[in-house]
Amino acid sequence: MRMSQLFAPTLKETPKEAEIVSHKLMLRAGYIRKVAAGIYNFLPLGLRVVRKIEQIVREEMDRAGGQEIRMPSVQPAELWKESKRWDFYGPELLRFNDRKGGEFCFGPTHEEVITDLVRGEIRSYRELPLNLYQIQTKFRDELRPRAGLMRGREFIMKDAYSFDTNRKTAKVSYDRMFEAYNKIFTRCGLDFRPVEADTGNIGGSESHEFQVLAKNGEDAIVSCSNCGYTANVEKAALRAPENLNENVIEEEVELKKVATPNKKTIEDITAFLKVDVKKTVKTVLFIVDSKTFAVLIRGDLAINELKVKTFLRAEQIRLATEQEVFAATNAPTGFAGPINLKVPILADLSIKGLTNVVVGANEIDAHFINVSIERDTSVKNYHDFRIAKDGDPCGKCGEKMTFFRGIEVGHIFQLGTKYSVSMNATYLSTKGKEEPIVMGCYGIGITRIMSAAIEQNHDKDGIIWPNAIAPFSIHILPLQMKNKKVVRLSERIYETLLSSNVDVLLDDRNLRAGPKFKDADLIGIPTRITIGARGVKNGTLEVYDRKTQTSQDVPIEQFLEKYETSEVL
Amino acid sequence: MRMSQLFAPTLKETPKEAEIVSHKLMLRAGYIRKVAAGIYNFLPLGLRVVRKIEQIVREEMDRAGGQEIRMPSVQPAELWKESKRWDFYGPELLRFNDRKGGEFCFGPTHEEVITDLVRGEIRSYRELPLNLYQIQTKFRDELRPRAGLMRGREFIMKDAYSFDTNRKTAKVSYDRMFEAYNKIFTRCGLDFRPVEADTGNIGGSESHEFQVLAKNGEDAIVSCSNCGYTANVEKAALRAPENLNENVIEEEVELKKVATPNKKTIEDITAFLKVDVKKTVKTVLFIVDSKTFAVLIRGDLAINELKVKTFLRAEQIRLATEQEVFAATNAPTGFAGPINLKVPILADLSIKGLTNVVVGANEIDAHFINVSIERDTSVKNYHDFRIAKDGDPCGKCGEKMTFFRGIEVGHIFQLGTKYSVSMNATYLSTKGKEEPIVMGCYGIGITRIMSAAIEQNHDKDGIIWPNAIAPFSIHILPLQMKNKKVVRLSERIYETLLSSNVDVLLDDRNLRAGPKFKDADLIGIPTRITIGARGVKNGTLEVYDRKTQTSQDVPIEQFLEKYETSEVL
Repeated sequence: MRMSQLFAPTLKETPKEAEIVSHKLMLRAGYIRKVAAGIYNFLPLGLRVVRKIEQIVREEMDRAGGQEIRMPSVQPAELWKESKRWDFYGPELLRFNDRKGGEFCFGPTHEEVITDLVRGEIRSYRELPLNLYQIQTKFRDELRPRAGLMRGREFIMKDAYSFDTNRKTAKVSYDRMFEAYNKIFTRCGLDFRPVEADTGNIGGSESHEFQVLAKNGEDAIVSCSNCGYTANVEKAALRAPENLNENVIEEEVELKKVATPNKKTIEDITAFLKVDVKKTVKTVLFIVDSKTFAVLIRGDLAINELKVKTFLRAEQIRLATEQEVFAATNAPTGFAGPINLKVPILADLSIKGLTNVVVGANEIDAHFINVSIERDTSVKNYHDFRIAKDGDPCGKCGEKMTFFRGIEVGHIFQLGTKYSVSMNATYLSTKGKEEPIVMGCYGIGITRIMSAAIEQNHDKDGIIWPNAIAPFSIHILPLQMKNKKVVRLSERIYETLLSSNVDVLLDDRNLRAGPKFKDADLIGIPTRITIGARGVKNGTLEVYDRKTQTSQDVPIEQFLEKYETSEVL
Repeated sequence: MRMSQLFAPTLKETPKEAEIVSHKLMLRAGYIRKVAAGIYNFLPLGLRVVRKIEQIVREEMDRAGGQEIRMPSVQPAELWKESKRWDFYGPELLRFNDRKGGEFCFGPTHEEVITDLVRGEIRSYRELPLNLYQIQTKFRDELRPRAGLMRGREFIMKDAYSFDTNRKTAKVSYDRMFEAYNKIFTRCGLDFRPVEADTGNIGGSESHEFQVLAKNGEDAIVSCSNCGYTANVEKAALRAPENLNENVIEEEVELKKVATPNKKTIEDITAFLKVDVKKTVKTVLFIVDSKTFAVLIRGDLAINELKVKTFLRAEQIRLATEQEVFAATNAPTGFAGPINLKVPILADLSIKGLTNVVVGANEIDAHFINVSIERDTSVKNYHDFRIAKDGDPCGKCGEKMTFFRGIEVGHIFQLGTKYSVSMNATYLSTKGKEEPIVMGCYGIGITRIMSAAIEQNHDKDGIIWPNAIAPFSIHILPLQMKNKKVVRLSERIYETLLSSNVDVLLDDRNLRAGPKFKDADLIGIPTRITIGARGVKNGTLEVYDRKTQTSQDVPIEQFLEKYETSEVL
């Protein structure tokens, strides 16, 4: 491609709409343009990157036994009602009526459509396993679209679905996708980690996210340097806090109710009663699938709602409102406690065996002190309901875990029979019995990979693309457009590379060297060949590496030989 | 690909939902499945055909100087309001609100978005001409989706847009696309014709459709075998009907009003007054952009509304309602006439010079007879407002035109400055003046090509794909799966073709020859290689051509040599 012909408008100023570096650079270098909040045009350079990523994904999916199909963007509500997600999905699902009043949505994911397809075609165990995938435009009506392609509303995604006769072979399908994902992100040139994750809106049992490490990443991840266990902080399994026994367990004394006028927060209480925060227990009320639950945790720690939701196998969880707290405790928020509480109680590992702690008295302006959890409450079992923090003990080995931030570019789920049971997708087993199909689903954010790659690979001057997903592999910069020898040599190199199927961009614009270098740095093609009068004279090309910022002079013929002999780079 | 692994569920029965052959065969052969009215899943075979077509389109668009981009499906209403199409487009435009109440639509076409993009980036004549295209999923909320992919609601389209400084270079851009389209449809193996067409909802001046000839085609096309003029019947330019002078012009006699109680239709009047239908003139009232017009045409002929709309350069046209007819004529429908009519009158060529004809009297139960158009009406000019019929005289040369039916697979338009003026997309001319950009737009129905190709290429047993767009090029059928030599040879041929990058399908299913042949005929891969015990013994392969239904025995080594020596077929 010739830059004089290329529609790649670069900007000198960074547009105000952009906050993070990948967004800024994609706008400045002419990869994308905004159409509406979270909705973008992909310009020629941007689309080339999308296609390179898509091709890597397609090749690895095919290699892993996937078959590419294409499902529609517009999906009928009736399928979502069958799976019950029409009610549960929330406002991220873009819903509308067609001209006849029929209810539809713009698919944010395709579990319903694929389950409907497969239940109509698969009859017998002989036709399983099956892995179908698509690469397609999706829409999620994010409340706060931001960061360019990182959290857009319309985006391109690869979604795959596996169908098996039982959980064991479903796990094999899952593991095969796990491997394919590792290959895909490795081929894309990304520094990433697979991490254990929550299953969220999609549902199912086991799940992994593939996180690209980046300091602007939206996700917090904890990783154990001892055993290697890595998980999204939302999911990370933890042990009881360190030194639990040594620090906080004392001999029991008599339970006592004390007046705590208007002391509603842990800070108020610890200051008023002059106790260590570790000698308090919080009682937090949640509404889980319309039922009220209380969760107990040590005062210095925080509850991970997702862990509670997962533990209760619930669809939805939220904090109780002031009124709901009052209904359950006969007191305003701030005075709830486990003693004589009428709602079911869940307890975090952090309160096991605690003695002489402070809890709310379920009565306005009153707390109990000297509470012994085992003696004074009905709690029998303890589970992990806490949000991981830096330095928390690993749930697998107990060693300290460290935090880092990541960008989720892939997410794989073992769905089990969640969709096949609700939508009645069955097969005839070897015993001639109708059994629900065991499913998995596997997503990759194609357009998000673009953002993630830039977050990980850039400098102050612009993008530094990994070669496999760069819009072009080689950028030729003739430095003096008035020097006929320079132009002629540049054209010769360009034509040679083109005919060897190299993705090559020639900056044939009638500009000085300065602006050409600036644009080249911004656009970020990995290898640059600068051709100037000196090189023409010496018979050499300057081959510059965008990443290392180093260059070497290569004799022209030696350079050309490499490409003339190989049919495809 | 191995058929044992391929998700291509074939059906023995033709589904009831399908009416035309392409729809039936795509369902039966496992290319597509319905999700909702006009909305389909593309199964692996179907998607392979889509991709082949896309690739041909992409190559020819690139060769013609197009640059591929990707615009969003979800488009903000504000852009459509700028172009005024938010009001004019009608219920085919799928509209919805996002979670914040913002108005959006699912793009059925992208003139607004591309004009918005280009006006933001193009500054000077130096940056023009420009040709941008995309291949993308679109949605048109058809009132009656039907015929499978032929008139679906969600479909894949290539749309291109050209931007020029003036009409002359815009015509060059248009002609280049015209050529590219000819190459594309030729490469797809289709029998097609470019035809002059109306510009419809898109607007603009000149326009051509590319019509695939097929007896089930939705479009009626007329073509002159003398001068070659070919046009959509909606658009076809006609001369006055043949023998106009000889048959219907007589000496004038006195104008007379007669009672015609309850005689409202041409049939009623001709029977009642005992006159030839060619001695009557119809007066039809239309509402054109909210103004009333009367159009006169000979009683035996029909008015082409599009010609009226184009003549008046209007946005919208419809028949007047009973009430609107009464308001304009003081009489119910059936009694309108050109004498003393208060609304503007347009006259078709077919009434020029007519004498002694019958017209309505603008009075209930009354007509005039002995009307002489020139003597008794205000009509001065005559234009072509008539619907073409088989045998009508060609508008260019006067010879008889013949009818055929076609499937529109491409449509190109010279838009002029319709969108650039309404949306203020300008460039600085060589004289430093702001001028509107001159545009063209160019569509190809990627998924409709699939239907069209099948309508044109099939027999009673199934599809017969043109090679360039077939899902696979070669279909290998081992006839006896229990004969190890047959299986071994089949595998060898399969592997050889695969490693030569041939798209090859191996029917490795443990089935008898009968069902394999049936499925192969249905799926329609152009070349079939049958491998049986006889061939193994003789050292030959049977190479069968799906189209000609002929086969020849080819020595195995001779067959393999052909592929082993060529890197890519």
